[in-house]
Amino acid sequence: MDDTNAEFAFIERIRRRVRGCERLTVPIGDDAACWEFPQPARCLITTDMLIDGVHFQLAETPPPLVGHKALAVNLSDMAAMAGRPLAAFVSVAFPQQLRHPVSSRHRVSELADGIYDGLLQLADEFGVVVAGGDTNAWNGPLVISVTLIGEATERGPVTRGGARPGDWILVTGELGGSLVSSQGFSEIPGNWGRHLTFPPRVDEALRLHETAELHAMIDLSDGLASDLPHILDESGVGAILRADTIPVSDALRSAPGGRSPLEHALGDGEDFELCFTVSPADGTRLLADPPIAPRLSHIGTIIAERKCELVDADGNRAPLSRTGWEHRW
Amino acid sequence: MDDTNAEFAFIERIRRRVRGCERLTVPIGDDAACWEFPQPARCLITTDMLIDGVHFQLAETPPPLVGHKALAVNLSDMAAMAGRPLAAFVSVAFPQQLRHPVSSRHRVSELADGIYDGLLQLADEFGVVVAGGDTNAWNGPLVISVTLIGEATERGPVTRGGARPGDWILVTGELGGSLVSSQGFSEIPGNWGRHLTFPPRVDEALRLHETAELHAMIDLSDGLASDLPHILDESGVGAILRADTIPVSDALRSAPGGRSPLEHALGDGEDFELCFTVSPADGTRLLADPPIAPRLSHIGTIIAERKCELVDADGNRAPLSRTGWEHRW
Repeated sequence: MDDTNAEFAFIERIRRRVRGCERLTVPIGDDAACWEFPQPARCLITTDMLIDGVHFQLAETPPPLVGHKALAVNLSDMAAMAGRPLAAFVSVAFPQQLRHPVSSRHRVSELADGIYDGLLQLADEFGVVVAGGDTNAWNGPLVISVTLIGEATERGPVTRGGARPGDWILVTGELGGSLVSSQGFSEIPGNWGRHLTFPPRVDEALRLHETAELHAMIDLSDGLASDLPHILDESGVGAILRADTIPVSDALRSAPGGRSPLEHALGDGEDFELCFTVSPADGTRLLADPPIAPRLSHIGTIIAERKCELVDADGNRAPLSRTGWEHRW
Repeated sequence: MDDTNAEFAFIERIRRRVRGCERLTVPIGDDAACWEFPQPARCLITTDMLIDGVHFQLAETPPPLVGHKALAVNLSDMAAMAGRPLAAFVSVAFPQQLRHPVSSRHRVSELADGIYDGLLQLADEFGVVVAGGDTNAWNGPLVISVTLIGEATERGPVTRGGARPGDWILVTGELGGSLVSSQGFSEIPGNWGRHLTFPPRVDEALRLHETAELHAMIDLSDGLASDLPHILDESGVGAILRADTIPVSDALRSAPGGRSPLEHALGDGEDFELCFTVSPADGTRLLADPPIAPRLSHIGTIIAERKCELVDADGNRAPLSRTGWEHRW
């Protein structure tokens, strides 16, 4: 089998491995997929591109975790809309010259299979059908771009633009340290950073959206200090955060010096937890009887004035600076 | 303005430049876009990733042509389903170290703007809304991945799987030479290869689909000799092609020696013309009174036996080999 046939063979393997679905009336293998929406439908679409050296280090990462993350970041965006994920489209540029310690001894097709192992396992877990994509090979590093379609529930999508003065600001889970292993900064093999292994909060978002009226929501990809301002900007409001209520990840207890655990929690990014706003009545109800397993924290309040301040335990106020992770142009 | 702000400024420019649309109820700027399908709808989704050095040479290409091609290849896939394009999602990895003769004197944001100039102009031309995306910067080459959603017409999508023995095989336009300029192989500045400037056959596909019952269709991206077999494989049929009826591009008349014009037409790829099958009655009607401006050619017939043969003017038959362009793994 020559190299050209290897690509077709890989695509054939993917076609055999992906689940079908009654609503996917044209699956992988045509110029486009066809998804049937059975009633007037609100189709949600999100896309994220992951690149070697920026979102993962291929040389240090098992390929299935790259595949997991590539779909998981999109599932996290779908969760942030309180949407139900349906189908994924996966485009990849595979490196012809592999520097991966395992895959360099093998063929590109083994790297490709490894990536899909992780991606398809997560897709199955969330009932997502892989319905199309595009595969390429080049002499550049690995690039993987996933587009996810979904549908809004009867309550509609939750945007970034609905926060109102007086709303409580809540977050799921714990923040910071996503790049370190769950054992802290130690380099234990097989103990990968949460940014590669995180569980997207799809079901949590749907349950929260059933239980309460979510006014605005975002997933924390760049860090709370960078992502909360998107809600504030889109809603035309401000916020006061209480520093001692921000849930700091356990992984940060053993963090090496430099920045404080709070600074990590605000700025590390790639937490992929949900940050949302609700009325105080809904907030009280959610905290008294949480409908989801991950911790829920009330970290602040939406105000009318367009500023964002952090209040420490002594009552000192300081503007929250956007310390989150961003691409350098 | 620092580099980080440059990225946000670019995204803001894009938000201001893109058109709105009543059915796009959540546009660019949230975690996902929301598209409202007003009735039970068949949503078509296609995606294509273009990479520097494979699908274009950034150092030799005006950025607007890269943006044009990135959307045009997806419009071509939508045309191949006889679908109406609606909204595009654009993910890009911009190179931090530019080798572009123009852009190297400027900032990444000027390259980004140039790419969107070409992309948005084509989007406007086809009534497509840019509804989301993802922008990244890295130290690798330019990668641009576009996902296009659309809808099938009342007659339904045209897949690759519907060809029937006895069908006529037709192609639009002329084949071969897409990599050379419209003046042949001469290197006249501003005279770019058709693979960068081609007009996607969206309207032509819709008009053909209204006029005739299209049984199977594909767009010619890898070349007729590679793409027709996809129709044959998916439909479980074979084909006989007549060499002297294959429409050879004018650009090939001045092609340097080596392969014949016919070989170029069969194998060059990136023609982005449509290849489709219809009943002989519909084929006769289409040729007698063509509903589209580009040339229509009847190049062969579908047969039950699963083989694909090319017959020359003297009646000699030879198997058609898949000479089209493919990625090397």
